[in-house]
This record gives sequence, structure tokens and C-alpha cells, in this order.
Amino acid sequence: MLELVIGNKNYSSWSMRPWVVLTQAAIPFTERKLRFDGFEPDSAFKRAITAIHPAGCVPVLIDGPLVIADTLAICEYLAEQFPDRQLWPAESAARAQARSAVAQMHSGFGGLRSALPMNIEAQLPEVGARLLASDERLRADLARLFGLWRSLLERSGGPLLFGAFSVADAFYAPVVMRLLSYGVPVPDDLRGYVQAVQQQPGVQAWVRDALSEHDFIAFEEPYRQAPAKA
Amino acid sequence: MLELVIGNKNYSSWSMRPWVVLTQAAIPFTERKLRFDGFEPDSAFKRAITAIHPAGCVPVLIDGPLVIADTLAICEYLAEQFPDRQLWPAESAARAQARSAVAQMHSGFGGLRSALPMNIEAQLPEVGARLLASDERLRADLARLFGLWRSLLERSGGPLLFGAFSVADAFYAPVVMRLLSYGVPVPDDLRGYVQAVQQQPGVQAWVRDALSEHDFIAFEEPYRQAPAKA
Ligand SMILES: N[C@@H](CCC(=O)N[C@@H](CS)C(=O)NCC(=O)O)C(=O)O
Ligand SMILES: N[C@@H](CCC(=O)N[C@@H](CS)C(=O)NCC(=O)O)C(=O)O
Repeated sequence: MLELVIGNKNYSSWSMRPWVVLTQAAIPFTERKLRFDGFEPDSAFKRAITAIHPAGCVPVLIDGPLVIADTLAICEYLAEQFPDRQLWPAESAARAQARSAVAQMHSGFGGLRSALPMNIEAQLPEVGARLLASDERLRADLARLFGLWRSLLERSGGPLLFGAFSVADAFYAPVVMRLLSYGVPVPDDLRGYVQAVQQQPGVQAWVRDALSEHDFIAFEEPYRQAPAKA
Repeated sequence: MLELVIGNKNYSSWSMRPWVVLTQAAIPFTERKLRFDGFEPDSAFKRAITAIHPAGCVPVLIDGPLVIADTLAICEYLAEQFPDRQLWPAESAARAQARSAVAQMHSGFGGLRSALPMNIEAQLPEVGARLLASDERLRADLARLFGLWRSLLERSGGPLLFGAFSVADAFYAPVVMRLLSYGVPVPDDLRGYVQAVQQQPGVQAWVRDALSEHDFIAFEEPYRQAPAKA
């Protein structure tokens, strides 16, 4: 049985991606959650994950003796092991664009990622409005993000980036979560995509778990002092 | 004919990776070099590359109507289009580890990348020594790098990370260049790997071109005021 090592579901955007892929594609797996208590070398999280893989980050996929670090490598491995799930688009040019979209997310969008850390249970539209007004890098990343989504959706016809669900949608699912938490205005022509991502069963399952976690981790909370009252 | 859009060969570490893959695998291609004059939106470089692909970074691969941004997506595309070149290891577990090594480089090692920007013609061992003494993030990245190389070389037996040349070596070739420029001490058991990378024909061809470029770009030079005298 595959095992996926993940972090807190409310916060760990990288963990979310392969978990959504596995769940959405109905690939059997177990999860092992390592609670985020800090990313310093002596934190319990860091000691536990480093003992599993020296890269020291979640997610990690364990398949018997094989221990694979990194979201993108995990998704490529799943695509190879489960070809019938069609985790990448079938057509070569679309597959190249899907990998490009995924690789751009994997290495870029630093302005968006640092300004708007994933926090599924939080509702922080005032923070979003303030940052949108003040943070030029965030605005540039959002413009590029929306342009990328638009060009892919125009080509495929939607509802997802390449028509049917692919790794690319899993890579952008945590971005959708951020847009929602921080109340970022989404252009009219992209609202359908945001909704389609939210409606994927794999995404809904992750969000359900994140909302029932109730584990407020101060170092992951630049914008809140305490969880919202229930 | 494939066309690869790249930046300055002395400085552009991302451009180097797919260029080395193409050259090393003897895949016919033409190169189009966009000189780095700045990364601001109104620089000639940024306007030229954004007109080619909205991601606005080199490298970009052009294959007829298909325009692919991002190093990792380009390498995956080449591996698919030229299966006889065996750009990834043939065995599934090794291929997963190769993709993991590549994806870790693609998204990480920020301490190493920002402290030691690639600068092939430069000889800056004093800068390297100073940074090694003062920069903890750099030291942590180097320890992780050497650990990763060691574990892969132990498994494969060398001389390259997965025995024969693969995309993984192309991804670490710019790191080898940095170790050399900044005189970073390499553990004894890894010197053979550093030499083997330097000796790959694709790497030698890129270095030759970089050394004959003679184009000193001030914004890429945190540590030099002028090029070394010939
Ligand atoms: N490139 C890695 C990045 C993973 C990553 O940064 N994970 C975070 C949690 S979402 C982590 O484990 N951080 C620990 C640390 O940075 O020390 C991947 O794609 O898997
Ligand atoms: N994730 C991209 C990164 C490429 C990248 O950062 N390229 C640099 C030159 S080596 C660049 O074009 N920078 C322009 C900019 O950041 O505006 C890739 O792997 O291709």
C-alpha cells in the first residue's frame, strides 16, 4: 500500500497536491500526518520528516522500499504507475503545457505564496484587500496566474485546465484555496474554473479534513492571533 | 527544427540545463540568445522574452507551434520526444529518484542559489570562503547537496548520479560551475562526480561558449566591479 506523509491539512499546500491526486484518482493509500510544530532542525516535525527523507519536507511518498521526496516527483511517479488514471493530458502538446504550468507553480509565484500562505479555515478578506493594494509582486503574480489559467482554459474549453482533471489542477488547487480565504477578486471568465476546482471530490475531501483539524499553528499564522470562533 | 531561447551563457543557470541536455544527447536545435540587460518589465530582455512566452523567463523551447516555458517541462518534453536518448534512467525506482533530485533543485536550494549566482568565468574563492564562514543557509544547502549526491552515487556506482548521463546531471551542472567559481571545498568522495560533470561534452561546449562571451552584466555581479583582465 502506498503511504503519503503530509503536514497539517489546513496549512500544507504542498501536501495537498499529491493527496488530491491520489484521492481524486481513487488510488488506494494511507496517510501519515506529521504535525507542524516548527521548521527548525530540532522541532519534532523536522526531526520526524528528516528521518524519513533527508530533504526534510512534506510530502513524501513511500512505496515499499522506495521513498520519494517532492510533490512534482511524486505526481510523475503516480502518473507512471497508474497510466489508466490519465493524470496527465493524453495529447503530447497539452501534456507539455500541463507540465509547464505545474513546473511554473513548483518553482515560482513566490509573491503569491509568501503574501497569501494557505490557511483553509481562515476568512481574511480585509488582509487580502490590504495586500492587493500594497503588494506589487502579489499583483504581478495574480495577473500572470489569471493569464495562464485563461490561455489554458481557452485552449481546452474547460471546465478544468485541460478539460478533465489532471495534475495541473491539483497543483493549482491550493492557489484556489488562497483566493477564497483572502477574498481575492477573480475575473468573471475564471470563476467557473475556481468553482470546478472546489467541486472536485479530492479537493472537497481535503477541505473537509482541513476544516475539522482545529489546530492553530502560530508560526503559520502571520495574520491571526487566534482561530475564528466556531 | 527545435529552437531554444536562452540568456547569457555565463550567467543563466536555467538556460544551461536544457542546452546541455540537447547538446549532450546530440538532438539538433538552434539557439536564440536574449542578452540580459535587466529583469525590469521595460528591459529589452524582459520585453523580448515576454513576447515569446508570458512566463517571462528563459529558457523557452519552441517546436513549431508549441512554445514551452520552464526548464523542467522542457526536459520532460525532450525525454518523451527522444526516448532513444534515455534522458531519464530506464529503471522505474531510479527514474523516480532522478525526478526527485531534479524537482528538489528546481524548487529549492535557495540559500546556495542566492549566495553563489552562476558566473562561469569568475574566480572568486575569497568570496566563497567568506560566505562559507558567514552564511548558515548556504552551509545547510551544501550539506544537503553533498548528502544527496553521495546517496545517489553510492546507489548507482557513478560516475554520474545515475551511472550514465541523465537530466539530473544537467540540473546539477550549474551547481558544479558554482562550486568551481567560488572555490567551495568538495568532499573527497564527490570530487570524481564534479570532474565527471565537467567532462561531459555538453557541459564543455556550454563552458567554452560562456568563456568566449565576454559580456559583463553589472546586475548579475554582486561580487565584481569589472571582468578579470585577460
Ligand atoms: N519542493 C518541495 C517543497 C515542499 C515544502 O516546502 N513543504 C513544506 C510544507 S508545505 C515543508 O515541509 N517545509 C519544511 C521546511 O521548509 O523546513 C515539494 O514540492 O515537495
Ligand atoms: N522556473 C523557471 C525559472 C527560469 C528563470 O528564473 N530564468 C531566469 C534566468 S536564468 C530569468 O529568465 N529571469 C528573469 C526574471 O526573473 O524576470 C525555469 O526553470 O525555467
